[in-house]
Amino acid sequence: MKPILLSLLVPALFSGTAASAETLRDLALETFRALPSTVPAIAGNPSTPAKLDLGKALFFDPRLSASGVFSCYSCHNLTTGGDDNMETSVGHGWQKGPRNAPTVLNAVLNEAQFWDGRADDLAAQAKGPVQAGVEMANTPDNVIATLGSMPQYVTWFDAAFPDDAEPLSFDNMAKAIEVFEATLITPAPFDAWLNGDDAAMTADQLAGLQLFMDKGCASCHSGVNVGGHGYYPFGLIEKPGAEILPPDDKGRFAVTATVDDEYVFRAAPLRNIALTAPYFHSGKVWDLRVAVEIMAESQLGEALHPEETTQIVAFLDSLTGTMPQVVLPVLPAETATTPHPVTAILP
Amino acid sequence: MKPILLSLLVPALFSGTAASAETLRDLALETFRALPSTVPAIAGNPSTPAKLDLGKALFFDPRLSASGVFSCYSCHNLTTGGDDNMETSVGHGWQKGPRNAPTVLNAVLNEAQFWDGRADDLAAQAKGPVQAGVEMANTPDNVIATLGSMPQYVTWFDAAFPDDAEPLSFDNMAKAIEVFEATLITPAPFDAWLNGDDAAMTADQLAGLQLFMDKGCASCHSGVNVGGHGYYPFGLIEKPGAEILPPDDKGRFAVTATVDDEYVFRAAPLRNIALTAPYFHSGKVWDLRVAVEIMAESQLGEALHPEETTQIVAFLDSLTGTMPQVVLPVLPAETATTPHPVTAILP
Repeated sequence: MKPILLSLLVPALFSGTAASAETLRDLALETFRALPSTVPAIAGNPSTPAKLDLGKALFFDPRLSASGVFSCYSCHNLTTGGDDNMETSVGHGWQKGPRNAPTVLNAVLNEAQFWDGRADDLAAQAKGPVQAGVEMANTPDNVIATLGSMPQYVTWFDAAFPDDAEPLSFDNMAKAIEVFEATLITPAPFDAWLNGDDAAMTADQLAGLQLFMDKGCASCHSGVNVGGHGYYPFGLIEKPGAEILPPDDKGRFAVTATVDDEYVFRAAPLRNIALTAPYFHSGKVWDLRVAVEIMAESQLGEALHPEETTQIVAFLDSLTGTMPQVVLPVLPAETATTPHPVTAILP
Repeated sequence: MKPILLSLLVPALFSGTAASAETLRDLALETFRALPSTVPAIAGNPSTPAKLDLGKALFFDPRLSASGVFSCYSCHNLTTGGDDNMETSVGHGWQKGPRNAPTVLNAVLNEAQFWDGRADDLAAQAKGPVQAGVEMANTPDNVIATLGSMPQYVTWFDAAFPDDAEPLSFDNMAKAIEVFEATLITPAPFDAWLNGDDAAMTADQLAGLQLFMDKGCASCHSGVNVGGHGYYPFGLIEKPGAEILPPDDKGRFAVTATVDDEYVFRAAPLRNIALTAPYFHSGKVWDLRVAVEIMAESQLGEALHPEETTQIVAFLDSLTGTMPQVVLPVLPAETATTPHPVTAILP
């Protein structure tokens, strides 16, 4: 019996070269999940058409920033992969943010938000940049004064939160934005393939997927977003240089104050990664090939063969999805009582 | 015969109160024109679907700026009336532009572009902010290097300019943007009324229209854009204070170097004026009522009765049009050869 048993086990053990498409798919489905076919529901924040429309308006409204220059869309640009293609974002007063802006696309499916996971969900996340001095530099009071000065917004908040005693609030602003952002789901060739379409991925992409699992990349970058959950030290095997891992940003340590969390970050979600250079929390690497090589060395202690890198990058390309059509909203006009933009940098 | 002749003339001479809707419309049509029912053709720059799609992509692409922060859309925001609601725009390095950003909506129908008319058309206009140090701070060479690094853009330029020896060029960038901007036409209640719909405007709006013509506002603010053609001194009768008319900006004088053109500006096109506060080239006035009063005093030497101001503002509200639906484009991703954003302020 033994030889027969062994031969049965071989495809599972050494799936790298021998696996059929079916076997590879079965393995992949143990690690990854295709995007849902409908917009994800958000616990405690049900979507309604009125809330969705309000959230879209708020997402695009630069008047959420003190200066009137920046909206959510500015750094989470829906024309360029849901991020801003900058090392770190430029914000109020031309200040630079501390970390690379992650994409908003499919972000609703991340376990937590920000590079250090300090926000549990997109509603909590949305309140951060609005108030950050180096980003939108606004205050909840000024946001509410601004929105409340425009009767159309008041009507929209009433319609979106009909059961609230105070529909117009900073929390509800964030909830509405979260509902809009949850619609930004981008089905990709990888999803079609996971769903059973053998022709959706090329041979190189499939070989890259196999490598991605075999080498151990999928240990951290797994699940529906191919990452976006779980926290791991950047430089598990070998710390990258200070130009890529700046010593003054200790990652999740700032959230947990636990020494074990120094230089720990949330594993980056890899959907649309080909659209969202530059890479890493520091935004210091512009080439996806180089980023893959750095990951292999720092996290897995492995120097990839160039052909392996090519195939892994090909797999990552299969994560580039189709954007939902977004029609620009038409925002309410300011009134005589709308606070004016403030471009000065306040101490 | 004389008394009969006089009574026949009265409606024309004192049309303010006596004119029927029909007479008022006839008079208005001598001064104004409804928007065309189709997208205006541009001499020498015919629209094609490929050129239009390319122009939309370019309009939204922040990589036309050196920093990667600003696109045409940043200051000509299509969600907020085609401008940025700022006194003067914030640009590269948080520098302030010298004049209030005019709306891009219906701008194709202006006789010339910019407050001083220094650009003959939107293609010429589009090249200005891309290169202005205080705006996008880019160079034509860097723009072409950027666009040329993305194969999708090269294909799009080829398709948009199939007869050109060199389809990818700074001039063609501007032409494509012009073709997209020409689609940003916003039919308003005033157009419906000019076209014969008596119910399209309220009694207050019609009274305001009558005043607008009777008082002389329409002497400068006429035509299809209710302004946007002709150059007039700001302060024809009485110069406003330096806080509104800063002495260091001499307007069209900078274009013509003719003393007569000191403090001369293009009459502002008034379509969507209710959406585009703050007002004047200096952007110093936030309230449309106040702007109307200043105009009456400085240009006509007239102090308006508050009720007259109310009615004129009501008429101006009837110029607020319906935005065309704009679906966000999906832009090409950078490649390894795409120039990186530069946020430093160069001397």
